[in-house]
Amino acid sequence: MLCLLALASTLTGCATPDADNVGPERPPNFVIIFVDDVGYGDLGSYGHPTIRTPNLDRMAAEGQRWTSFYAQASVCSPSRAALLTGRLHLRSGMYGANRVLFPDSQSGLPDSEIVIAEALREIGYATAIIGKWHLGHLPRYLPTNHGFDYWFGLPYSNDMDSTVAPGGGAGRAALFDPKIEYYNVPLYRNDEEIERPADQNTLTRRYTEEATRFIRDHRDEPFFLYIPHSMAHVPLFASDEFRGTSPAGIYGDVIEEIDGSVGRVLDTLREEGLAENTLVVFTSDNGPWLAFETHGGSAGPFRHGKGTTFEGGMRVPGIFWWPGTIAPEVRQDMGSAMDLFTTVLTLAGAEVPQDRVIDGLDLSPALLGTGPGPRNLMFYYRVDKLYAIRKGPYKAHFITQGAYGQGPERTQHDPPLLFHLGEDPGERFDIAAQHPEVVEDLLREAEAHRRRLEPGPPLFDLRGGG
Amino acid sequence: MLCLLALASTLTGCATPDADNVGPERPPNFVIIFVDDVGYGDLGSYGHPTIRTPNLDRMAAEGQRWTSFYAQASVCSPSRAALLTGRLHLRSGMYGANRVLFPDSQSGLPDSEIVIAEALREIGYATAIIGKWHLGHLPRYLPTNHGFDYWFGLPYSNDMDSTVAPGGGAGRAALFDPKIEYYNVPLYRNDEEIERPADQNTLTRRYTEEATRFIRDHRDEPFFLYIPHSMAHVPLFASDEFRGTSPAGIYGDVIEEIDGSVGRVLDTLREEGLAENTLVVFTSDNGPWLAFETHGGSAGPFRHGKGTTFEGGMRVPGIFWWPGTIAPEVRQDMGSAMDLFTTVLTLAGAEVPQDRVIDGLDLSPALLGTGPGPRNLMFYYRVDKLYAIRKGPYKAHFITQGAYGQGPERTQHDPPLLFHLGEDPGERFDIAAQHPEVVEDLLREAEAHRRRLEPGPPLFDLRGGG
Repeated sequence: MLCLLALASTLTGCATPDADNVGPERPPNFVIIFVDDVGYGDLGSYGHPTIRTPNLDRMAAEGQRWTSFYAQASVCSPSRAALLTGRLHLRSGMYGANRVLFPDSQSGLPDSEIVIAEALREIGYATAIIGKWHLGHLPRYLPTNHGFDYWFGLPYSNDMDSTVAPGGGAGRAALFDPKIEYYNVPLYRNDEEIERPADQNTLTRRYTEEATRFIRDHRDEPFFLYIPHSMAHVPLFASDEFRGTSPAGIYGDVIEEIDGSVGRVLDTLREEGLAENTLVVFTSDNGPWLAFETHGGSAGPFRHGKGTTFEGGMRVPGIFWWPGTIAPEVRQDMGSAMDLFTTVLTLAGAEVPQDRVIDGLDLSPALLGTGPGPRNLMFYYRVDKLYAIRKGPYKAHFITQGAYGQGPERTQHDPPLLFHLGEDPGERFDIAAQHPEVVEDLLREAEAHRRRLEPGPPLFDLRGGG
Repeated sequence: MLCLLALASTLTGCATPDADNVGPERPPNFVIIFVDDVGYGDLGSYGHPTIRTPNLDRMAAEGQRWTSFYAQASVCSPSRAALLTGRLHLRSGMYGANRVLFPDSQSGLPDSEIVIAEALREIGYATAIIGKWHLGHLPRYLPTNHGFDYWFGLPYSNDMDSTVAPGGGAGRAALFDPKIEYYNVPLYRNDEEIERPADQNTLTRRYTEEATRFIRDHRDEPFFLYIPHSMAHVPLFASDEFRGTSPAGIYGDVIEEIDGSVGRVLDTLREEGLAENTLVVFTSDNGPWLAFETHGGSAGPFRHGKGTTFEGGMRVPGIFWWPGTIAPEVRQDMGSAMDLFTTVLTLAGAEVPQDRVIDGLDLSPALLGTGPGPRNLMFYYRVDKLYAIRKGPYKAHFITQGAYGQGPERTQHDPPLLFHLGEDPGERFDIAAQHPEVVEDLLREAEAHRRRLEPGPPLFDLRGGG
């Protein structure tokens, strides 16, 4: 407890006798493990009955398991932009009629945006991204131009550059029974394409090797390691060690391989004496892609999945691990992936940018056990439209819509639907009529938010050529 | 490990220096905590995002958390009969057009049935039931005539004897905003009615006090304590300490009070030095009563709830705790509440009856970590009809039907629906057409089961008079 208080005030790590790489002089390391299309209900500790995730369950038991943590968008590119910049995707222009960036997109995350890696490199951190970028694949937009010293991974989603169906969209059948050669997606090391098509069977294994090597190589300096796995986005691939082993089928194989990867990352931190000076976060970029049935994940108790602004689309696992500093706890505080930007910068002692709006909040009081989390509002966007808002336990839907290509149709609600997420996490019982004062309050919050928000130009729709 | 092996071979407890009430001479104690209408998804460790169950989560983390444990029926009376006798409810006649026993029922569990308590009392155990019986309220059917030395609790469900709606059925409104006097249900101590209407607000608290007192009073002899809580069956009542405190509303208050009760039971066992010689089981009598919306629970990732033969109706939490003997683990072995009969008798060194069919299997290899669980088949009955069967990961539905009063309608399936519960726990994707050989195998198993089964006469339909 003394140690926790000391840390809260000085924002430095806890020194312990057997951890030789920590000390009051050295700021903490950060590892963010960011999985793709993994739903709230896909881990054992979040209630999955057949997917086995002993490493993540142990991480959760040793740290904080958050039950109200959100991806900031319900699809890939905007969600990643929000996490890395601490800002709503609208501010950086990471939106458009094209919901994400594609291999023929001509744009990417603007140079003017400040990515976590950039801010930390400025104060002496070694930085790496091991995994999927998806914020622009043209040279000027690559991770190495956004503050990362090192990159190993894919420039965009693993279902892109399809060779199967003409026009770039892979046939559905090819997604359920995929082969490496169906997806001509490149693998990069720094700015160099080193393999094409990427051997997706070994991707999770190679990400793990790269991540653990980075940790060992940088054990003597502060580091920021961002591991955005390409899995469990369809098409699903797993290495020989895992393929065909899970009671939950191929989706289970993929999650269990990620779980093994998390175990190796934490073990490496322990072996190098870094565990007590490293904050590790595990979360997902959006909810499960339900259209892919047994190849998609589970939102657990929540409604709908990826692509929607129901809870299933954006509420995701959120696990925080920092032995000796974060005490084991289940927390119901609200958190957004955007908050990781502000939290990490604050804990590192870096300055949070003052020249722009930062939407992320500092979660460290909740993490360190010194107070409640600061977030009381959550904004649910679909592209550039505010579909829903949450304040405390109440959520109002102004517009509802199913995932792309799936029902239900887009429906405007006036008055909005109102749900109490504490009593009704599944968003089943509209209580707007019983609580007009809550509806009014949420409408006011939404209006105030809209008035203040200045979106950048939509950059996803610059396509073609290339 | 040595200790585990020793126990597996001798079926006696593990002696440790600081546990003064254990020893090789003394068989283990058993505590079965059986909650009412609590769904698979209602505990934190089973994925609920807003109900706080730190005591049950700790129990699960210290013991085995089973993810494929079943109540043997989807409603109250037959489920209780199966647990206590180790036999399908059909064998004991605990079925009928009336789905459960009512206050005007003229029948109950036949004398000829052997209840766990009876078998254990025979070999010297002290026995008690603290809670709801629901296997016959006429004097000859009461718990004290079925092997229990002591009873404190209700003879049937807490929504019965309604004073609100004429005809005995309580109005729906009275269930959502209940008062004690709406339900003229009696409270018993042994064969005596001691309070009517029972003060339901204090019921969980009083059950807890009675249970912990029983443990303390019987610390020096082997005991069997069965705690069938009246909650979380509607109408929901909680004591002042809990009412209005849960983020999940009144349903959360009720579950959190039960969680507190479990904590006090385990603490009492620890304080009395009995923890290492006591197997504690926590499970539920059926899935959540979804018709009651925010007053009903959650089946988590499973389909439907109470009253149905979908997984949500019968798959329930199953937690096994025995410090020093059961090693912490998440287990996917299949188990049925009927198996508790056989498992408990075996671990106690009592003889499992040979003069009748016992459907329960001995789960101790799985509990003690010496081998896999023995159960590979699960039969899903609605009253006297076999609606579905599970073998390994596959489940075939011959008939499907919603809960009483709720859709979907009764539908016969020929060929049956087939689901893979490992890859598709939510029973969404019928794969019968792709696996005709599995369908055939399950049809054969069902036919063999039907041929062997000899049901007793249906006793639930003897009503009136009284």
